[in-house]
Amino acid sequence: MKLCGYEVGEQQPFFLISGPCVVESEKLTMEIAESLKEMTDRLGIPYIFKASYDKANRSSHDSYRGPGIAEGLRILEKVRTEIGVPVLTDIHEDSPLDEVAAVADVLQTPAFLCRQTNFIQSIAKLGRPVNIKKGQFLAPWDMGNVVNKAKATGNQDIMVCERGYTFGYNNLVSDMRGLATMRDTGCPVVFDATHSVQLPGGQGNASGGERQHVPVLARAAVAAGVSGLFMESHPNPAEALSDGPNSWPVHRMEELLKILMDIDNAVKANPYLESTL
Amino acid sequence: MKLCGYEVGEQQPFFLISGPCVVESEKLTMEIAESLKEMTDRLGIPYIFKASYDKANRSSHDSYRGPGIAEGLRILEKVRTEIGVPVLTDIHEDSPLDEVAAVADVLQTPAFLCRQTNFIQSIAKLGRPVNIKKGQFLAPWDMGNVVNKAKATGNQDIMVCERGYTFGYNNLVSDMRGLATMRDTGCPVVFDATHSVQLPGGQGNASGGERQHVPVLARAAVAAGVSGLFMESHPNPAEALSDGPNSWPVHRMEELLKILMDIDNAVKANPYLESTL
Amino acid sequence: MKLCGYEVGEQQPFFLISGPCVVESEKLTMEIAESLKEMTDRLGIPYIFKASYDKANRSSHDSYRGPGIAEGLRILEKVRTEIGVPVLTDIHEDSPLDEVAAVADVLQTPAFLCRQTNFIQSIAKLGRPVNIKKGQFLAPWDMGNVVNKAKATGNQDIMVCERGYTFGYNNLVSDMRGLATMRDTGCPVVFDATHSVQLPGGQGNASGGERQHVPVLARAAVAAGVSGLFMESHPNPAEALSDGPNSWPVHRMEELLKILMDIDNAVKANPYLESTL
Amino acid sequence: MKLCGYEVGEQQPFFLISGPCVVESEKLTMEIAESLKEMTDRLGIPYIFKASYDKANRSSHDSYRGPGIAEGLRILEKVRTEIGVPVLTDIHEDSPLDEVAAVADVLQTPAFLCRQTNFIQSIAKLGRPVNIKKGQFLAPWDMGNVVNKAKATGNQDIMVCERGYTFGYNNLVSDMRGLATMRDTGCPVVFDATHSVQLPGGQGNASGGERQHVPVLARAAVAAGVSGLFMESHPNPAEALSDGPNSWPVHRMEELLKILMDIDNAVKANPYLESTL
Repeated sequence: MKLCGYEVGEQQPFFLISGPCVVESEKLTMEIAESLKEMTDRLGIPYIFKASYDKANRSSHDSYRGPGIAEGLRILEKVRTEIGVPVLTDIHEDSPLDEVAAVADVLQTPAFLCRQTNFIQSIAKLGRPVNIKKGQFLAPWDMGNVVNKAKATGNQDIMVCERGYTFGYNNLVSDMRGLATMRDTGCPVVFDATHSVQLPGGQGNASGGERQHVPVLARAAVAAGVSGLFMESHPNPAEALSDGPNSWPVHRMEELLKILMDIDNAVKANPYLESTL
Repeated sequence: MKLCGYEVGEQQPFFLISGPCVVESEKLTMEIAESLKEMTDRLGIPYIFKASYDKANRSSHDSYRGPGIAEGLRILEKVRTEIGVPVLTDIHEDSPLDEVAAVADVLQTPAFLCRQTNFIQSIAKLGRPVNIKKGQFLAPWDMGNVVNKAKATGNQDIMVCERGYTFGYNNLVSDMRGLATMRDTGCPVVFDATHSVQLPGGQGNASGGERQHVPVLARAAVAAGVSGLFMESHPNPAEALSDGPNSWPVHRMEELLKILMDIDNAVKANPYLESTL
Repeated sequence: MKLCGYEVGEQQPFFLISGPCVVESEKLTMEIAESLKEMTDRLGIPYIFKASYDKANRSSHDSYRGPGIAEGLRILEKVRTEIGVPVLTDIHEDSPLDEVAAVADVLQTPAFLCRQTNFIQSIAKLGRPVNIKKGQFLAPWDMGNVVNKAKATGNQDIMVCERGYTFGYNNLVSDMRGLATMRDTGCPVVFDATHSVQLPGGQGNASGGERQHVPVLARAAVAAGVSGLFMESHPNPAEALSDGPNSWPVHRMEELLKILMDIDNAVKANPYLESTL
Repeated sequence: MKLCGYEVGEQQPFFLISGPCVVESEKLTMEIAESLKEMTDRLGIPYIFKASYDKANRSSHDSYRGPGIAEGLRILEKVRTEIGVPVLTDIHEDSPLDEVAAVADVLQTPAFLCRQTNFIQSIAKLGRPVNIKKGQFLAPWDMGNVVNKAKATGNQDIMVCERGYTFGYNNLVSDMRGLATMRDTGCPVVFDATHSVQLPGGQGNASGGERQHVPVLARAAVAAGVSGLFMESHPNPAEALSDGPNSWPVHRMEELLKILMDIDNAVKANPYLESTL
């Protein structure tokens, strides 16, 4: 499939979706986008900037949720035009859909909402590529039904994204088998390496995270075989206003990407063995 | 707390929420409500009728979703006035909130949406008692944050409901410890004994269910200690248009309720031992 | 089935297996046995004393393992003859089988060993009733194979015991559906309410436990329907040399048993609904 | 650490343990060993032959368990001397330890037995390198206690092996984070890519398996970072007498190993990012 001008798919080099969890300030947002754009240009990795403008599903109602829709979209638009990078943002049931779709090159639906038929279809109808996050409660093979609902709208540019599966309380596990299974949907499979290391609710009023496992899971997922990678990044994760514990530092991103590219090349040099049994 | 005129709580006899998963026909809906009303009157159980008018989160987009909002609410209103029983229905992000709240005595939020802050708060603001289903991905102690969000609207009539927790793929487990844990929210705890026996996605394009486990889990939950029970029921589950595999037959409901009452009486004759350690 | 002179089974009142995790001193062991014997006589509950003489599978190799075989069996024999109560102890691959079977009225096999065919069969061959603990990794329906192996030795006095199932890391869940499922083995089903509240490995060098959930799970299991209950008990759990965090205080046992008896009576007054669907 | 003459460790190229689940015939055993020896010589991969002589923990007591100890050890000895490859076999509580250790270059302990202190220590005392399989119920960080018990015997040649973790009923999940976590034991970490795709008990009287996931998990684990790989192999898995569904075909092994080597090289070219955060 064609995504923001790039050919993407299970035998293509991986693309990257990265940026801060949430828009904090215009300055910081521009800086992150610029760093990542330069880095991925250097490496030849197709890159899409990501940031949310409103986090509607924080653990606690006291948490920072973002700058709001107007300011958030203005900044995303600026990233898009001034840095020259396509942007992805997530969208919720009560988002002003057309306004968001007017700015975002790619839309992303939250994992908790993957079974809301009306919602998935109204997002798909906007005609933008959609990255559908798989619910933490949904088996990989059950994404087929979700994709069918989305594609029934006529939009064929659908991606599916793993972000960890419920594993006891306050923990997620990333089942690498699921990445291979989801290829059967015919959609590009994306692995979200930063939300997958979250410990949901693990800090009382917020979700914890284990940043040290980001490179472990990212390497494993690329080796399992994915079309794209999603990784939230921040210049200073310890001070990020959302998802800091599981964000990856911008200044450590390039060395991570290099290793991932080497793995990706090794894996995609030939067809997947599992599909030739 | 006072619920539809009944005093409910952890030391009160349990109340029952029951009815078909979805409104099928007016005639059938009235018949079920009438049977259950008579039965619970006979047994002295506080009773609330339940039915959905639109199932937005079916596994497949070909499944029956209900009669739609107008017809659905008309029938619920009829149940309310002609049978004289309070009614509960579930509500979604795109429901016409005021219309639904005008008819329903109690509102119920879907498990998948328990972390959507805006949604939970906009429902709580309607001023009706709300039964918040705990997500299949949420630890029992994390319902405290959800309740806080809801009560921050001023509405103090909040209930929390267990309906099974993600347990590997296509299966749910009901952790009885969680029922005790959720009492710490200060809200009445409800156990949903029919969705808890679902096998999500377990039938390809639909969710399966193991009806034979309904009485097992209902007995266990009442013994663990709950304020209310939720059980979907149908005169002929094999022909139900939604959730048939996990619905309980109306004609077997009375004998089940009698046993549950005996257990409930035994358990609530004294304070819970676990709170006096 | 006949167990130590008592008729036990799914429609009989529950029997109790209880005592300290491990034999600490002769004096303490006798005191516990005497207290529990008097209590269960008063309540009319068939009672079997339980203690281990050597805990071979402690988390850390520095933990107390018991007084050893000779001293342990001597004390168990004394409980048996002086208090007049049958005794159960657990047995391992390297136990002197005949020596243990000469003293113990009932043998119990550890959960981790439930799939060791040779072991299960050599224990069953001893001709004593055997309580086989289900592994924390074994589905309830897979106990059928384990029972078949045991009964193939000719010994028909086999019981199956649930003690919690692996649920993410360092946690166990008790699936009440499994108690009903295991009745299909034709064996009496026992619920272990104290090991089920363990948090395996949850304290670094030892397993943690949540004592407050013992009555919750015990009530739930009796309501689900069991033939027997297993609960480790100690006069002062905070000072127990093993499994303290999940032991139940002896002086709170009688009030717990009374509630459980009331639930048991309610549940067994009629056949299980789930078997008449 | 030095293993059968090879330097192994987290920054060394991976070694391979492979062979049939169980010794079937002498002829077949020799053929497999010869094929794998030639292949790994060609690729420069340190190789250890693996086969069991007696499977004591089959699901059903009717399953094939192997040729028995005498014949089994004779064949392993022949593999060792005639093919010139070190051999690994698994050992149980009732194995004649000295006899087995006299033949096997490496010993392996079954996952279910990882918490049996006496057993682990009596195996470690034999002085051979030991590959300790992590129980399907044990958190990765809890292997530290197991390793301490083993090393307390004086034997420092201990390896730890992941073979899947209990994930609901009849399923296992391989948590790639655990491979990184287990490096903290200081022991070489081995990933068992064939038992990890088992569906325990999933076929009623036997365990099922999903062979197509072997290359997926093997790639992912090598990318996560391991010292060694364990993969059962058979010339004709459909006719294997044990573990056929999850065995990897010998004639597809070389192409799999080549990809794994490329990934391994990419990953080990630099220190793990997760250890430099």
